[in-house]
Formats: sequence, C-alpha cells, structure tokens
Amino acid sequence: MTRSTDQPHAVLPEWDVSTWLNTPVPISVTSLRGRVVLLHTFQMLCPGCVAYGLPQAERVHRTFPASELAVVGLHTVFEHHTVMTIDALRAFIHEYRWSFPIGVDAPDGLGGPSRTMARYGLSGTPSCLVLDRQGRIRLNHFGQPDDLVLGALLGRLIANPDAPRQVDAAGTPRSELAPQGDAVVCDPAGCRMQAGGRQGSTRTSP
Amino acid sequence: MTRSTDQPHAVLPEWDVSTWLNTPVPISVTSLRGRVVLLHTFQMLCPGCVAYGLPQAERVHRTFPASELAVVGLHTVFEHHTVMTIDALRAFIHEYRWSFPIGVDAPDGLGGPSRTMARYGLSGTPSCLVLDRQGRIRLNHFGQPDDLVLGALLGRLIANPDAPRQVDAAGTPRSELAPQGDAVVCDPAGCRMQAGGRQGSTRTSP
Amino acid sequence: MTRSTDQPHAVLPEWDVSTWLNTPVPISVTSLRGRVVLLHTFQMLCPGCVAYGLPQAERVHRTFPASELAVVGLHTVFEHHTVMTIDALRAFIHEYRWSFPIGVDAPDGLGGPSRTMARYGLSGTPSCLVLDRQGRIRLNHFGQPDDLVLGALLGRLIANPDAPRQVDAAGTPRSELAPQGDAVVCDPAGCRMQAGGRQGSTRTSP
Amino acid sequence: MTRSTDQPHAVLPEWDVSTWLNTPVPISVTSLRGRVVLLHTFQMLCPGCVAYGLPQAERVHRTFPASELAVVGLHTVFEHHTVMTIDALRAFIHEYRWSFPIGVDAPDGLGGPSRTMARYGLSGTPSCLVLDRQGRIRLNHFGQPDDLVLGALLGRLIANPDAPRQVDAAGTPRSELAPQGDAVVCDPAGCRMQAGGRQGSTRTSP
Repeated sequence: MTRSTDQPHAVLPEWDVSTWLNTPVPISVTSLRGRVVLLHTFQMLCPGCVAYGLPQAERVHRTFPASELAVVGLHTVFEHHTVMTIDALRAFIHEYRWSFPIGVDAPDGLGGPSRTMARYGLSGTPSCLVLDRQGRIRLNHFGQPDDLVLGALLGRLIANPDAPRQVDAAGTPRSELAPQGDAVVCDPAGCRMQAGGRQGSTRTSP
Repeated sequence: MTRSTDQPHAVLPEWDVSTWLNTPVPISVTSLRGRVVLLHTFQMLCPGCVAYGLPQAERVHRTFPASELAVVGLHTVFEHHTVMTIDALRAFIHEYRWSFPIGVDAPDGLGGPSRTMARYGLSGTPSCLVLDRQGRIRLNHFGQPDDLVLGALLGRLIANPDAPRQVDAAGTPRSELAPQGDAVVCDPAGCRMQAGGRQGSTRTSP
Repeated sequence: MTRSTDQPHAVLPEWDVSTWLNTPVPISVTSLRGRVVLLHTFQMLCPGCVAYGLPQAERVHRTFPASELAVVGLHTVFEHHTVMTIDALRAFIHEYRWSFPIGVDAPDGLGGPSRTMARYGLSGTPSCLVLDRQGRIRLNHFGQPDDLVLGALLGRLIANPDAPRQVDAAGTPRSELAPQGDAVVCDPAGCRMQAGGRQGSTRTSP
Repeated sequence: MTRSTDQPHAVLPEWDVSTWLNTPVPISVTSLRGRVVLLHTFQMLCPGCVAYGLPQAERVHRTFPASELAVVGLHTVFEHHTVMTIDALRAFIHEYRWSFPIGVDAPDGLGGPSRTMARYGLSGTPSCLVLDRQGRIRLNHFGQPDDLVLGALLGRLIANPDAPRQVDAAGTPRSELAPQGDAVVCDPAGCRMQAGGRQGSTRTSP
C-alpha cells in the first residue's frame, strides 16, 4: 500500500499543452489546486495504454465526484509523431468514448519526446501521476497501478482536506530523457524509451 | 463512490463464532477497535464467493498493513449444512490458500442461517462489511464491491485515525431472515435466501 | 456449433488490396485455394477489433500450421479516412506486433466504405470470414466468434481435405452498404454502419 | 495444434463408477462408441477445476450437439476423502449448476487415488481426455487445454465419421500412481500427486 509520510513532496510543475480536447477551457495544474488529481499520460498507439491505463483513468473519472478529484489525460508522443496527430487523437477519443479532459502535450519540434513528458522526466507510457490537494506528487507510476492500491491512495488523499497548505516548490523532477525516438520498446505493460533511466516501477514520493 | 456524512453509524455487534481457523487466538469485534475492518462473509459452496469475494478479501489482506486494517472471514452457512462442515472448510482453506483469519459462524441448531448471519440481518453470501476504527458499519454490500470503490473507502477510513471516538451503541441491525433453508438461489453474484427482504445491492451506511 | 450442410456455399470473390504489409508478396484469394482461410476485417481505431478480434486472429495464426490454414487481415476503412492511413496502420502493426499478412482495402475514392468491404457486403468491423479449402464462405460473423466454436469449425474444415472440389461460382454477396460515413456506431462488439441491414450476428452459410 | 497421425491410439478402458449424478442411467465407455467424448476428471475442492476445467467442460457440453459429442465428468478423489463425499458433490453440482453427467470414481478403500484415476494413470486434477468415435484416446491433458486448440480437435474428430472402425485394444495405460495421498500440491493449474511421474503438460496421443 502507498503510505504517507511527513517528508516534503515535489509540487508538479505546469504542463505545456498545445491543444485541449473534451474540455471547453484550457486546464492548468494550478487551477486544480484544492482537488486531488489523477494525471494519465499516454499515446494512442501504446497497447498497454489502450488496454489498461486509459480504461482505468475512465473508471476513476466515473467513480469519484468531480468536486473532489479531477482526471486529466495527457497525450505524450515520443514515437510515430507523423501519424499520432491531433486529428487522429480526436478520432481515437471519439471511438473509445473517453470522457475526461485530454491535453496534447506540446511537441519539442525535433522529433523527440513531447515537452511536458521531458519536463516531468517520464520514461514512457502509460504513466499515472497522482497529486494531492496541494498539487504535490504522491504517486508516479509507469504502467497501471492496481485498482485497490490506487483507490486506497485516492481515498486517503480525498479524506485529508485540511492537510497543511504550504507547498514544497522545490524538488521539481529533472528531465532524464534524451530525445531519441528510435529506442522505444513496447510490451503489455507499456511503451518505454530505453535510454530512460527509470525502470518502470512505481515511485511513490516519500 | 462511497461518501461519508456526519450521521451516526451503527456499531457492529459481536459475532458468535464456534471455531477459528488461520489464527492462534479467537478474535472479537471489540479487539479490532482502532483498526479498519473488512469482514467477508461466505459459504465454501457459494460460486460467487469462490470466484470473486474470497479472492478480493485475500487481495485486501495482502495489500494493506495489518497495523491499519484487519481482514476477517466468516463462514455463514445457511444451506447444505451437513456437507459444509468444519473439516470441509479446513480442506477448502488449505486448497485455496486463504491466509486471513476465518471464523465458523455458530449454527442455530435448527438448520437455518447461522447465528451471526441472522443477528446481522445478512441476506446471503458473499457479503462485505467494512468497519471504521470505532467499529461502526460503513459498508454492507451483498456481492463483490468494485476494487476501486472498496480501495477508496478503506483508504479514506485509514486516513482518519483521529475521528471522534464516541460510538453509537444503538442501531444494531435486526434479524430479517427466517430460518428456511429451502428458498436459496445462487447466481454469479452470490447465494441469497429468497425470503430475505434485502435485495443484494450495496447499503452504505449514511 | 456451426454445422455443415450439403447446400452450396458462395465462393468468396477476390479482394481489392492497394498495399500489403507483413508479407513479401501480394496474396490473392485464389492463391489460398487448398487451405482453410480466416479473413479478419478490421479498422485500427475500432475498439472491438483491438480488444478482441485482432488478438483472436493472432491466436489462430500462431495455433494452426501454415500448411493447413492461412490468416489474412484486411484493413477496411469506412470512417476517419484521413487519419487511418497506411503509415498509421504500419505504426499500429508495429506496436501491437501483429504477425499475419494484412492488406489495405482499396479506398473507393469517395469517402465511403473501402472497395472490398462494399463488394463483400460487410456491415462493419470486426468481421470474421472463414473459407474452406475450395474458397467457399463457411462463416461470416460480425464481432468475435467464440474460440471454442471457431476452433471447432476450423478443425472440421481442416479435416476435410478431400471434400468435393467443384465450387459454386454463383452467389457472390451483393453490396448492402451505402457509402455514408456519418452514421457509424461503435460499441464493445465493434463498429457498424447504421445503414447496413445486417445486425451484427453470425451468419453461417448453410 | 493437436495433429493426427496414422499411429495406433490406445482405447480407453472402462471406468469404475460407484454413483452417477445428472443422468437417469449409468454410462459406460462402450455405450459412447460412435460419438466423440470429452472426459473431464476433477475434484470439487481443486481450485483449477472450479475456475477453469469445469466451466470449459460445461461450455463444450452446451456448444456441441449431443448426437455428435458426449461430455462426461468424473470425480476422482485422491485427497480429503472424508469431506469430498457424494452428498458434498451433489451440493456442489447443485450450486454450480453443472449440467453434464458426472460419475463418482470408485474409491480404492485404502485412502489412495480412486480406482479409475489409478487405472488411467492420471497424475492429478483437472485432466481432460478426448476420445474419438472409436473410443481411442486422442488427448490426455493435465490442466485446461486452450479453447481454440480443444475446439479444433473436437471439430476434427467430429468431422471424421467414417474413420476406420477397427480399434486398438492394446496399449491400455498402466497405473503410474502410488496410493499416497500426502504429497498433493495444488497450484492455479490444478492439483497433482508429487509421486506421479507425469508432469502436467499435454500428452497428445500420436
């Protein structure tokens, strides 16, 4: 189970989204302060995202009240840039009926991982990040966390509306990814860049 | 999602267990005060218990720290009394490797539902009850609750170690079951007594 | 179970494929005569194809010897033409590791269902067609047939190497689809054109 | 895939059943000659039987016409003899709604594996045996065969109504099991006697 401690947690920096879908207005990380956040990063051609990650994000979106928890998707492309376009993503969302807001992570213009993915130091897709009401990172998981474990973490964070409001502005994760699209490996769990130093397991912020 | 309110919750009365398995010492409801409790009631010949309920109880047992949450099984026989004996249950536990404590609910001696099952007014198996740290009933679900929903409830209750300690001693559920073993119907969700007034959906204590 | 009869079966007409992937040489219906054929028609953005149909085709491809049975995929686009391009399909095949030959059904140039899809009168995706060694249609199923039922049909057809060689050249299915891309409905079973008269169940050629 | 050859196959000897359930009259191996037979051997407290083997036998029973294929269950007890009684089995069949004929394999009277289990040299439960129309063993599989593979075999055997009628009366499998109930190991695949020499994979009769 994911445990809480009294140690400081890094606050998630802003994302850099070029286009928003499934929402009438753009969403910022800051605007979600006060609610628990599930950030699901994915690619539409990532088998593990389609089979497990996105359905879990949708389940969370439908299970928890919007006043307590926000689910946000982020399309973080790091391969096959020419075919995973905004139009393709729009068709994908239509066919699969994803109902939560989804942002298109801004491309780096060089064919590497998209900007926010690099900024957050994510090693592949799907990645599941959970923020508490202060915007602090409480889970950073490559692959799909277990429903029971994820539910427990979300329930715990929702139950703490009066947790201290001071946030830890330091500790922003550094990019650990070189922009090299070739070395991508997909397996049932997800798609990863081999150059990424983080090997796909949960990192719960202490 | 299961929501909390400020309304009083009934405290679960003591169970009446004739034999304990998987534990060196008997367990009382009172002895668990201070921890969140998942009580899983089942019959070894109930298909829904074997396929869904018991595996979920085992997952919860393995996921949460014992210092925060206790999982207890209760073998509540209301049909086929002559074959669902303690020896048969012991073989069943051995084969399926259930690792949490399991109590044998005391038979009523008349061939009807076992005593605690009647005392708690349970309509069939599996039933999943969740108690908060004060022993109050926060979930009473016939069938298997969703992992995400159950996880959220458990996480929320674990996160509230300082909730008010005063307990509501009233409101004990009355028996609603007549001791008539004939009218039992099993489907994939579970086994129910048809005379039981409660029709198998979740009752979250308000 | 799918039953055989002595009635004549229509021989599947040739498909009209613009590009082949996963095969060094183009494949014609005629070239497969003498082997049992599983033809799986799909779209890369059809949820039912990705979750059920394509994995089943892959299982069949890996289970049966190539000398007895050929699995062929056909990308039959009838919606979202601008994003389901050959390059997108190539990336999709790469990520999901589909290993059987896949043909791109020739577009009609008008934005309607692709040519072979119209020629065969298919109402949506996925569709599963099974041909016997004489190229006759023995199963035409919208959605995913049960593994046990499909296995039994394939086993039966493989076991009949000496079935009569005369083929029924008549009975070619007529198109039943108007080229109107708007009225597409996807559900877990697959994606259908609403104007299509055939409502998604198995049609076993008698 | 299971392949056929021209080599002789052993004919399954008669079973030794003490009680039949789900059938008005006793069934002999000989009486099934002319039909394909799926024999599913199980124990009611074997997790792999309950989760996978018995549901597959039920699916086969419901899928194929009775005129072509017979499904027979055989309760082959080799552990926990005192609780896996006929009354317990009857309750088990009632609760799970198994609808095919089930025979109780005659106990050896010494607490070891039941008689037919020993006669057939089966190493554990579940075991799946398939007989062709001449009563010859075409599959002897410990655990659950894949639906696609099993379906293909059954379809192939059903399709060969005119296969040679002469049977190979020799080659009866010898018992390979010592009657020692202690060394039983259950895992998700099934329950095995450790002294049994055959290690749990498919043995397709050549």
